Amino acid sequence: MSPQYATKREMEKAIDELRAALGEEAISTDDEDLHRHGYSEWSSINIDQLPVAVAYPKSTEEVSQLAKVCHKFKIPMIPYSGGSSLEANFSAPFGGMSIDFTFMDQVLALHADDMDVVVQPSVPWMSLNDQIKDSGLFFPVDPGPSWNKCCSLWKSSAGYNLTNLFVGSEGTLGIVTEITLKLAVIPQETSVAVVTFPTIRDAAAAASKVLRAGVPVAAMEIMDDVQMGVINKAGSTHRKWKEVPTMFFKFSGTKAGVRENIQLVRDISKTHKSGDFEFAKSAEEGKQLWSARKESLWSMMAIRREGDEVWSTDVAVPISRLPDIIEISKKEMDDLGLFASILGHIGDGNFHESIMYNSKDPKERAAVEKCVHDMVERALEMEGTCTGEHGIGLGKKASLQKELGFDTINVMRSIKGALDPHWLMNPGKIMDAKA
Amino acid sequence: MSPQYATKREMEKAIDELRAALGEEAISTDDEDLHRHGYSEWSSINIDQLPVAVAYPKSTEEVSQLAKVCHKFKIPMIPYSGGSSLEANFSAPFGGMSIDFTFMDQVLALHADDMDVVVQPSVPWMSLNDQIKDSGLFFPVDPGPSWNKCCSLWKSSAGYNLTNLFVGSEGTLGIVTEITLKLAVIPQETSVAVVTFPTIRDAAAAASKVLRAGVPVAAMEIMDDVQMGVINKAGSTHRKWKEVPTMFFKFSGTKAGVRENIQLVRDISKTHKSGDFEFAKSAEEGKQLWSARKESLWSMMAIRREGDEVWSTDVAVPISRLPDIIEISKKEMDDLGLFASILGHIGDGNFHESIMYNSKDPKERAAVEKCVHDMVERALEMEGTCTGEHGIGLGKKASLQKELGFDTINVMRSIKGALDPHWLMNPGKIMDAKA
Repeated sequence: MSPQYATKREMEKAIDELRAALGEEAISTDDEDLHRHGYSEWSSINIDQLPVAVAYPKSTEEVSQLAKVCHKFKIPMIPYSGGSSLEANFSAPFGGMSIDFTFMDQVLALHADDMDVVVQPSVPWMSLNDQIKDSGLFFPVDPGPSWNKCCSLWKSSAGYNLTNLFVGSEGTLGIVTEITLKLAVIPQETSVAVVTFPTIRDAAAAASKVLRAGVPVAAMEIMDDVQMGVINKAGSTHRKWKEVPTMFFKFSGTKAGVRENIQLVRDISKTHKSGDFEFAKSAEEGKQLWSARKESLWSMMAIRREGDEVWSTDVAVPISRLPDIIEISKKEMDDLGLFASILGHIGDGNFHESIMYNSKDPKERAAVEKCVHDMVERALEMEGTCTGEHGIGLGKKASLQKELGFDTINVMRSIKGALDPHWLMNPGKIMDAKA
Repeated sequence: MSPQYATKREMEKAIDELRAALGEEAISTDDEDLHRHGYSEWSSINIDQLPVAVAYPKSTEEVSQLAKVCHKFKIPMIPYSGGSSLEANFSAPFGGMSIDFTFMDQVLALHADDMDVVVQPSVPWMSLNDQIKDSGLFFPVDPGPSWNKCCSLWKSSAGYNLTNLFVGSEGTLGIVTEITLKLAVIPQETSVAVVTFPTIRDAAAAASKVLRAGVPVAAMEIMDDVQMGVINKAGSTHRKWKEVPTMFFKFSGTKAGVRENIQLVRDISKTHKSGDFEFAKSAEEGKQLWSARKESLWSMMAIRREGDEVWSTDVAVPISRLPDIIEISKKEMDDLGLFASILGHIGDGNFHESIMYNSKDPKERAAVEKCVHDMVERALEMEGTCTGEHGIGLGKKASLQKELGFDTINVMRSIKGALDPHWLMNPGKIMDAKA
């Protein structure tokens, strides 16, 4: 049976009720606001339906009130924070209420001795680290260098691991209003090295050797020749780069340790035909070397012609298969005449492809779709996964079913049904209510 | 509604059916076998009920056949492997079938390039590392030094994290017949340091400082004066130890890195009134220093008088509260006249208390129960958890409800009900079918 949602009239009643309880400005039905919460320039997919209202709660209590009213009237609830998702994860296929956490952006408690911090959903990552820096601690997830990232919460073996079930459930099981993040000690020393290679295969082989040698690297990223060219063309990094496959390493630790590890990486790179090997001699140099990595997506956005869009997608495969999938995918894109760049978190076997295309041209859109579809199929054949970071949203539901099979999707469906029997939490994402 | 299980007659039919399908010896109803699968000398709790049969599957296909028959006749299924659990996690309160994985102990596939290994449930940890050592890789979980252990599986953001939901579900959601473990590189160098402190509080403060200084340690364990005395008394380590609070550090990395880190730990320890500081100058010395840590539980078992049992329990708290809870708990045990030792994985805020008692003496058993109960209450007041490692089993169901609250237990109940509607998977563990 398909879920039944509030009628237009019920939705209006709910909005009245919520405005009475939370204040007039707590619920917006402004057209531009609705559009911003249902459409995204970055998304691989967009739909015509928009949310009917946007709520702006200021506290967990207000979220709880919102949820009660939405439950009473059977209104879909779609949590919204940065709006950076790429697979229409916050779209509103059944209308309903977008819940925007803009006003819940506080660091609630820093427990420096216990090395954790309690935050609200919209605290910006950069600002979080700035706010807590006097403690000597930081939250080590850097959008980009996800390798080695650690988001383990308190050690416990008490009952089912609901934390990890909710993390990555894309708002389909519940709404997170507070989270405790484990922090790391700001290292004595960090440095960056940038290394060029003749081919992606050589770079991947070097990366694999670095991992197998147990050299501790804080991040290990790869960008292809096209991506390096895009950065040059966009001119956002104040220098010119060689337009060849390039690896970016981040090191952290003690001064002696970092020095030792840079040397180890240099030696390994040499045995894999590395070209230039630059490493930062100061924090400022480190920032400059890392800037190419930081600016990669924005550079791609910046060089678009009028009417172009960028389709950004990711898959992950066992690291031994990474060169294969990158080479085949690049060749297919070239053959289809598509302009696409590649960026990989190589330690994870995870890579991102950004494809430029004219969304008004159905032939070009079809070519991109085929390319993404083929890349996902290829990743699954290699025992990989259809997404390493972006999630499923609306865009990769079919891929997920292919990856996990009908039975496993049904397990997920049962879990959702058990926690959200009216299918109100971000419905239509990850999987449909019925097959 | 309470679950209804197979009658005796139905159980007999099921056994006949399974023997016909899997061979006579696949199902045992031998009394001694049933006892071994329903009772444990280590367990904090034992019950009179035993399983009705023990199955010995040899493959995933056989497990699947077992599960089908058990499902048809509504027979509880209780997975059993090492038998080391402490909270009656494998007991059989509703009878049913113990599924013993003795014959599924193989390393199925080593993917050295991808740094993972696929294993069956009963592969012994020591043997696993021995079988794969030529690859230069190892599985870094060491029963004991759990700090820093890493059991992340393949990176993916594809749908609900069912892996982490099943890990730690104690067999109540399904049966794991194969698992992929992430491996680490065998470090160039490992070493051990043993440091004495005047009090647990000084030791904990030093440990906290080591963490906050970002010194990488592979393990950091604490044992109290009683535990050190027990090891001396049992004589299992070929040397005498000072009977004072003692910390055990394990280091791994490059030669230079390990040397540097030992020095850092020594310096920090000194500022916290450390006494002796011994560190291993060879692998053999390292083994000897670590032996005290390795032999701690067995030493406690070894010095029991006739009729004594050892109640071993664990909790975890934020690390800043660790000295408080250890001090209060030790005092309460002393006041109750109990002989108990303490061992902690200090980086986790996780510690174990082993209490010796005469189980035939109801007064002494009651004193132990009070002591454990109070320690769990204290951990919860400190925002800790009722168990860091041992799990819930039968023994800690009330504590779990206290820790998480009725609503969260009901969420877990719903998840179990969705995946196991007849409540056949290890029923009675973690939570009851109804409140």
